[in-house]
Amino acid sequence: MVEQTEFYLPEFKQGFHLVTSLILSNIGKLPEKGILHLFIKHTSAGLTINENADPAVRDDFRTFFDRRIPEDFPGFKHTLEGKDDMPAHIKASLIGQSVTIPFTNGQLNMGIWQGIYLCEFRHSGGRRKIAATVIS
Amino acid sequence: MVEQTEFYLPEFKQGFHLVTSLILSNIGKLPEKGILHLFIKHTSAGLTINENADPAVRDDFRTFFDRRIPEDFPGFKHTLEGKDDMPAHIKASLIGQSVTIPFTNGQLNMGIWQGIYLCEFRHSGGRRKIAATVIS
Amino acid sequence: MVEQTEFYLPEFKQGFHLVTSLILSNIGKLPEKGILHLFIKHTSAGLTINENADPAVRDDFRTFFDRRIPEDFPGFKHTLEGKDDMPAHIKASLIGQSVTIPFTNGQLNMGIWQGIYLCEFRHSGGRRKIAATVIS
Repeated sequence: MVEQTEFYLPEFKQGFHLVTSLILSNIGKLPEKGILHLFIKHTSAGLTINENADPAVRDDFRTFFDRRIPEDFPGFKHTLEGKDDMPAHIKASLIGQSVTIPFTNGQLNMGIWQGIYLCEFRHSGGRRKIAATVIS
Repeated sequence: MVEQTEFYLPEFKQGFHLVTSLILSNIGKLPEKGILHLFIKHTSAGLTINENADPAVRDDFRTFFDRRIPEDFPGFKHTLEGKDDMPAHIKASLIGQSVTIPFTNGQLNMGIWQGIYLCEFRHSGGRRKIAATVIS
Repeated sequence: MVEQTEFYLPEFKQGFHLVTSLILSNIGKLPEKGILHLFIKHTSAGLTINENADPAVRDDFRTFFDRRIPEDFPGFKHTLEGKDDMPAHIKASLIGQSVTIPFTNGQLNMGIWQGIYLCEFRHSGGRRKIAATVIS
């Protein structure tokens, strides 16, 4: 069985943000078992799964990504939409546009330390739209 | 319901290439709703989703990947298949071997600026084989 | 149809390890056609698909990742769990927590050179738990 829904996440500032609860509140009750596919309909933001406890982890993610994919990376030609735009595209493809998560007994079956991150790579990315598909 | 098909993409030169239309022409009519899983059966090419408008974005992707994962990266031992081979393997795992895309009302449900990229990491990679699975 | 199982992989040392056979021995007979979703329930290890023949490829992966995401990366704040912990989180999100692989005629439908890698990013990561979902 396939169920789909679409929703917006509120605007977040540039960086990595834990959104597990926000996501769950938008998809409603999960069936017994299957997979949840979350897809972000943008090219300058991403979704990943990582540590859900220490906020410093999300800060360190930002430190790393900004250092390795800086706004002044030499040679970029796609610069008209701002210096943060091309780095955002690259970060988005490195992190990925979607996550697929198993659910079991009606609950997301992640590890105890895992949470879903919204990765906002623009300075003012606005609200981000998520397409969620539940396969059961 | 599960439908599968396999097809070749034509040979592309090293770099990032927009292949949304090519993919769609090979998978035929999509059902009402579900997910499309595209899997590239190679270890030196990848699939991702990114900006579908400005070709400079794809050029900048190549600039970035070639700078960060250069052919002369010190310490590589797997060099017999050419200097582009080991960087291609690493780029392939950073980008990923598959994308999963929701479809809704019989159409891919991507954002307006999103397109599917074939990421060709070898100088002469040849035709690339895609296994497509439609879950509906 | 959805079938799920969970199992542990034995502890591996830090690095990239080919685990295709280990995975297959844990999931049992595959149905005719569909997709296999493998999800690692940890934030400092990952799963990817890459070259299955030359062990030097896995060594070179480690060389590259350790050079680009070193333990002494300047500015990390999340250091209490060890110098390998924050790099492990970043590597995990770059590689990804899951792979989705098509199967056809009851067998994984990968390319001839493709294998499944467990990417262990900690010095002593322990056994890693995998949640496997078969959609057919």
